[in-house]
Amino acid sequence: MVAMQTLILNSVDLQRIVSHVGIDDLMDETIRRLREAFVGFDPKSCITPQRTGFHYSSPPGLIEWMPLFQRGSKVLMKLVGYHPECPTRHGTPTIVSTISIYDTSTGHLTSILDGTFATAIRTGAASAIASEWLAHQDSRVLGLVGCGAQAITQLHALSRLFEFERVLVYDVDSNVATSMMARATSFENCLDVEVTSLQEIRTNADIICTATSVQINSGPVITLTGCKPHLHVNAVGSDFPGKTELERDFLLQSLVCPDFPAQAEVEGECQQLASPDQMGPSITDVAKSPGSYRQHKARTTVFDSTGWALEDWVAAELFVEKANELGFGQHTEIEYLPSDPRNPYDFLVPAKLPV
Amino acid sequence: MVAMQTLILNSVDLQRIVSHVGIDDLMDETIRRLREAFVGFDPKSCITPQRTGFHYSSPPGLIEWMPLFQRGSKVLMKLVGYHPECPTRHGTPTIVSTISIYDTSTGHLTSILDGTFATAIRTGAASAIASEWLAHQDSRVLGLVGCGAQAITQLHALSRLFEFERVLVYDVDSNVATSMMARATSFENCLDVEVTSLQEIRTNADIICTATSVQINSGPVITLTGCKPHLHVNAVGSDFPGKTELERDFLLQSLVCPDFPAQAEVEGECQQLASPDQMGPSITDVAKSPGSYRQHKARTTVFDSTGWALEDWVAAELFVEKANELGFGQHTEIEYLPSDPRNPYDFLVPAKLPV
Repeated sequence: MVAMQTLILNSVDLQRIVSHVGIDDLMDETIRRLREAFVGFDPKSCITPQRTGFHYSSPPGLIEWMPLFQRGSKVLMKLVGYHPECPTRHGTPTIVSTISIYDTSTGHLTSILDGTFATAIRTGAASAIASEWLAHQDSRVLGLVGCGAQAITQLHALSRLFEFERVLVYDVDSNVATSMMARATSFENCLDVEVTSLQEIRTNADIICTATSVQINSGPVITLTGCKPHLHVNAVGSDFPGKTELERDFLLQSLVCPDFPAQAEVEGECQQLASPDQMGPSITDVAKSPGSYRQHKARTTVFDSTGWALEDWVAAELFVEKANELGFGQHTEIEYLPSDPRNPYDFLVPAKLPV
Repeated sequence: MVAMQTLILNSVDLQRIVSHVGIDDLMDETIRRLREAFVGFDPKSCITPQRTGFHYSSPPGLIEWMPLFQRGSKVLMKLVGYHPECPTRHGTPTIVSTISIYDTSTGHLTSILDGTFATAIRTGAASAIASEWLAHQDSRVLGLVGCGAQAITQLHALSRLFEFERVLVYDVDSNVATSMMARATSFENCLDVEVTSLQEIRTNADIICTATSVQINSGPVITLTGCKPHLHVNAVGSDFPGKTELERDFLLQSLVCPDFPAQAEVEGECQQLASPDQMGPSITDVAKSPGSYRQHKARTTVFDSTGWALEDWVAAELFVEKANELGFGQHTEIEYLPSDPRNPYDFLVPAKLPV
């Protein structure tokens, strides 16, 4: 029986990888690979069922899983916990996540790693790529509505593909908005962010990223009447039935491109649309022929980003590759492989007992 | 931010636990806890969706997940890979499995461990408990149809609750049948097994366990006309649409108790029954009032064991508890917890970089 080792990438390994590769190179590589993944996406060979899970109310929270099957290769399973009372009750983050990768030739768990950092990186990368295809090519002003963790990677990723002159930020919590500058210093090309009003963002931005934790049925987080005629919005916060960030009227006038249409209809901005024909092409449709959608750069466009396992796959694979290249992570044999597959008690033979 | 450590129980830790606790005590404890879990099962507080997964044909295999939610406590996720060509193609087992446990107050991955050994142990324990409630109390002859890995734990678990005088075994592969004796030596009270025919098993057994890898639409594996009037069968092998081990007529004359009715109707022996009213009570219904079903010990009965996440939960929890008691396993922080939850790049601050 051959040994089957699992790569365990702990949080220190992850830091070492980021530090060795460099956060800018890491983001560039994620963008490059994710763009390729969008272009090459084939729903026959890459199957991504909608996320499902357990939701509960006391204390409020959920644990969901997002599986992906790359035919003839791997299964990825991202587990995400969302527990909004955690920071105050337990001193732990609201969102905690792990990614497990399984080999479909053997069923073996090949790797396990953190999923929160991968999610932040890939969510930023996805918005940057969507903006490349849908936003005005001379976009100079970025608006960020919501200044939490996701805003950092939105800003970082978009800065890799656009040369912004101004970054306007707003958060319902003004302390969060003002602390944005101090948090956005780890990457290159970082402009001073300007804490401002929704009104300023609406009238000046070429691209807006909404990344809020808006409550269910409390949207929109920004009205967009009077925005630039070519405004592109990356709507990142909508990920639950009833949780939306944009006005329905703005969606109706815009080309709305979901990441994962079946999910966006239920959990994304697209849930505000009456029928699928009001939705635009998916991001992978755009990817396959960006030229066909170039004329839409002149009008308002929306990337409805609900979060997709394909994106997790790209980020997780990158981390695992880098870990293997750099020799980071631990390898251990989690699965018990009896020498005699017909005897589960094989290891009780005295000669085989560990000391 | 508090640290969140994950217990990683590798295969050597698992061996150490079994060796320290002793395989007989471990089985007794599993039986005791599983019996309690069956008795206490409340579908409102313990939610076990049907397993689902990815199935593929070249090479043939599947990866499935079996989630469980214990309200206010934990989520368990068992991933199972089934790849029948693995032993010849890769020298790895057909079945490989891992179990992950998550805390529902934080979403934290608390433990990860092998799932194959837990599955073998709990499948044996479940049959022993079902036999205690449904088989004739003076059962003296055990028949095993199929002599692979599951047969070992069936024999072991049943031997903990019954005093058998004879153990009759049969396998379509006579080498597998004859090697059974050598494999069934790690536990107490082990009788000599007698390699015999299906005919001998049919006419002599008080209890039969079928644990075969019968092909789809190739059952039954044993005909039971002429069996003892009180025969109890633990049907373990049926776990896929079209894969059944018993005759429909035998099911129709018997009290058929599934482990997990919704799953048994689709994947178990119960799929041969035309309507749910031909099914008997579930094993948890029996557990809640075994006295009401005592009269059925005089007739033929079947435990339709398709494999249930509740059983995995009991076994996994036992291993984790023993690991913690004995100090086995590694603890590592897989999830990345930034000191500033609003800054995913927090760890790039030079002072925080790992050396």
